[in-house]
Amino acid sequence: MSIEHLHAVPHLTTALSGPLQQIEQRLLSRQSDIEAWLRAEWRKTPAPFYASVDLRNAGFKLAPVDTNLFPAGFNNLNPAFLPLCIQAVQSGLERVCPTARGVLLIPENHTRNQFYLESLTTLRDVLIKAGFTVRIGSLLPDLEQPRELTLPSGRRLLLEPVRRVGDQVVLDDFTPCMVLLNNDLSAGRPAILEDLDQIVIPPLGLGWSDRLKSSHFALYREVCQEFAKLVDIDSWLIDPLFRNCGEIAFMKREGEDCLADNVDALLAAIRRKYTEYGIDKPPFVIVKADAGTYGMAIMTVHSAEEIRQLNRKQRTKMAAGKEGLAVSQVLMQEGVYTFETWGSEQAVAEPVVYMIDHFVVGGFYRVHTDRGPNENLNAPGMHFEPLAFVESCNNPDCDRAPDADPNRFYAYGVIARLALLAAAREIAADKATVKRVAASANA
Amino acid sequence: MSIEHLHAVPHLTTALSGPLQQIEQRLLSRQSDIEAWLRAEWRKTPAPFYASVDLRNAGFKLAPVDTNLFPAGFNNLNPAFLPLCIQAVQSGLERVCPTARGVLLIPENHTRNQFYLESLTTLRDVLIKAGFTVRIGSLLPDLEQPRELTLPSGRRLLLEPVRRVGDQVVLDDFTPCMVLLNNDLSAGRPAILEDLDQIVIPPLGLGWSDRLKSSHFALYREVCQEFAKLVDIDSWLIDPLFRNCGEIAFMKREGEDCLADNVDALLAAIRRKYTEYGIDKPPFVIVKADAGTYGMAIMTVHSAEEIRQLNRKQRTKMAAGKEGLAVSQVLMQEGVYTFETWGSEQAVAEPVVYMIDHFVVGGFYRVHTDRGPNENLNAPGMHFEPLAFVESCNNPDCDRAPDADPNRFYAYGVIARLALLAAAREIAADKATVKRVAASANA
Repeated sequence: MSIEHLHAVPHLTTALSGPLQQIEQRLLSRQSDIEAWLRAEWRKTPAPFYASVDLRNAGFKLAPVDTNLFPAGFNNLNPAFLPLCIQAVQSGLERVCPTARGVLLIPENHTRNQFYLESLTTLRDVLIKAGFTVRIGSLLPDLEQPRELTLPSGRRLLLEPVRRVGDQVVLDDFTPCMVLLNNDLSAGRPAILEDLDQIVIPPLGLGWSDRLKSSHFALYREVCQEFAKLVDIDSWLIDPLFRNCGEIAFMKREGEDCLADNVDALLAAIRRKYTEYGIDKPPFVIVKADAGTYGMAIMTVHSAEEIRQLNRKQRTKMAAGKEGLAVSQVLMQEGVYTFETWGSEQAVAEPVVYMIDHFVVGGFYRVHTDRGPNENLNAPGMHFEPLAFVESCNNPDCDRAPDADPNRFYAYGVIARLALLAAAREIAADKATVKRVAASANA
Repeated sequence: MSIEHLHAVPHLTTALSGPLQQIEQRLLSRQSDIEAWLRAEWRKTPAPFYASVDLRNAGFKLAPVDTNLFPAGFNNLNPAFLPLCIQAVQSGLERVCPTARGVLLIPENHTRNQFYLESLTTLRDVLIKAGFTVRIGSLLPDLEQPRELTLPSGRRLLLEPVRRVGDQVVLDDFTPCMVLLNNDLSAGRPAILEDLDQIVIPPLGLGWSDRLKSSHFALYREVCQEFAKLVDIDSWLIDPLFRNCGEIAFMKREGEDCLADNVDALLAAIRRKYTEYGIDKPPFVIVKADAGTYGMAIMTVHSAEEIRQLNRKQRTKMAAGKEGLAVSQVLMQEGVYTFETWGSEQAVAEPVVYMIDHFVVGGFYRVHTDRGPNENLNAPGMHFEPLAFVESCNNPDCDRAPDADPNRFYAYGVIARLALLAAAREIAADKATVKRVAASANA
């Protein structure tokens, strides 16, 4: 990343930014109330160990569109803020596992995705610098011996085969105190990780084999309603509308009516809000797999008709997500325009905010030159350019304009933490379910 | 501070740096053990809310010479690391007082020391950005109305008179949850702060009216012995020898023999260590008030003779510390050379490390053009130039040389935290004393 990039911030088109500046102004002026409220919420439902949140900034609306509990992309963060990550890891692990020394990091099974491997290596180094012994335990089925990889950055990474011994997972000469998952379990819950007596974070139930985006956004909606009351704003300004359909089979064209009807209803609801706020833009809907990730199985639609007219190629694209996981449940989410642009080409930019424990530790922009402001910027094989945040998200400056860089980043950090709180409530609900299941099994 | 300064690090004269590179090498290679040990120690004795530690780096020895539990100088830190301070305050206050919202910051009674007021304002802003409501309650006896000060930086500061209402201290329309002292109580424990039902940090007993440097360094010695065993080094490499004398009266020349004899013994002990390590430098001793601060009542001596030959001016200087506090107890501490120099003038530089909770959040160098490597650089009215650390202290890089900047800063952070741990044990001992006193009062 060039030095020039480290000092640049995308331009926010201001024509539609009226309501957003109001949000930013409100977040700034109510900062101590917001932080006190968040502190109280983290006491009730502790934050996940880490997360990244994709935001969309439409000027009139600022909202999360995806929350990743097994974040990659650490290599895209501004190196100047790695100390913040290191400190947050120290603080977070002291809470989760005060006596931990050895951490087993379980990554995705991508051995050729150099971007992912660079992220994994950055994450490993942050954990090491935080003062832990860290080794990487791979779930690759064909890995029988440790395999060393050399990355484009010149850094090295040792993947080691994980073995199960009794109630523990171990490497050859390493019995970790805790297991840190950086694998979103799209391929299912690995049997080797079930019922460990080691701490596993995030819990297995948070993987995409069990989790639904719609559950997350339902909890996010609750969080927004509480938060909107606290700071006295319309919760729609920070909360994307959504609907979901169960049991879709794209290839068999089953469930198409449900999808089309819901898209229609959602577009009507968005149109009403656009009219209320005088927004002169066509509403749109993002259709995506309810358990999907990696920007796969995702499309933009502007009418129910588009759903009925999907061609075979589009159906195929929607039918399968990461690791070939069949898409049977679908989330329809209000499309949020992104009106941040970058460079002379006016490339579209979308912020991604990173959190460790309940601390916002940085972020970057996904910048695309060949996509529109109403398109998903997280797509497979995408040629995005990461643009690290130039400032931290915890250093607002009340003496400057509400849309000054530190204040815009603070606003991102607040909204991202609302999504993090929704994820914390998912974990709490998951634990409650596990307890209920365990109790009934015992009965 | 110029941009050029933000990218510069003092030069460490390397002629004598053999053993130190060994220390740095050892600290690096044992990092995960050190961090695990420190984590365990903080669980036993929680760190003070904040502290700054003056280090001296002789190349062959790296040791703290003063630990300040009511630090000023926050304005000298690199602004790039304020996010680290903000995050550490959040982490620290969540532990000390999880439900705190309003913080009353009680400063020194300096209204003309612009450096101090700039530091106070930076500290206030860090607390505000961490999400707290912060107001400044002054103990100035003649302050009857709020007084607004405008600082050289253009920032404003409102000093408000503190009132006692029942078991609480309040401002006119503000009842804080906790009281944060930034006043070292050299003038004594203020009655208005005794027996509050609000949390007071650091505890009153840590003020200079009760605290002795010799107690701190006795505890520091214990810490060093444990640490030296952990990383297998000679504890002298990080621990300044010391002796203390009770009941000195400089003006009356009482206690002079005790002082001279102890200086003699101390010089002999240092000489033995210098011989052992082949150090071809004259040993020296720093004589200072055992309860002193602000660089007052402090002198360098190379022989017991110098003690017997003090002139009237020197005696007067030694007889009174900050706020005119009479000096009756004296600490004699092994002088540690500082062999870091800065700029073409070869100005002497001494690192000061800042910690919030148990996190190292930054530091700066005191740089003096007109002092020698064997002199105290913290002197009243000193014309030092602060040189902010260019890198954080928590980001060591094992792929670089042990004395590369990030590794030198990591070493500073480790040694500073050993002094912090000694302070944590002081607090624990103080609390135990308070409990014993309370129990015997109840008996």
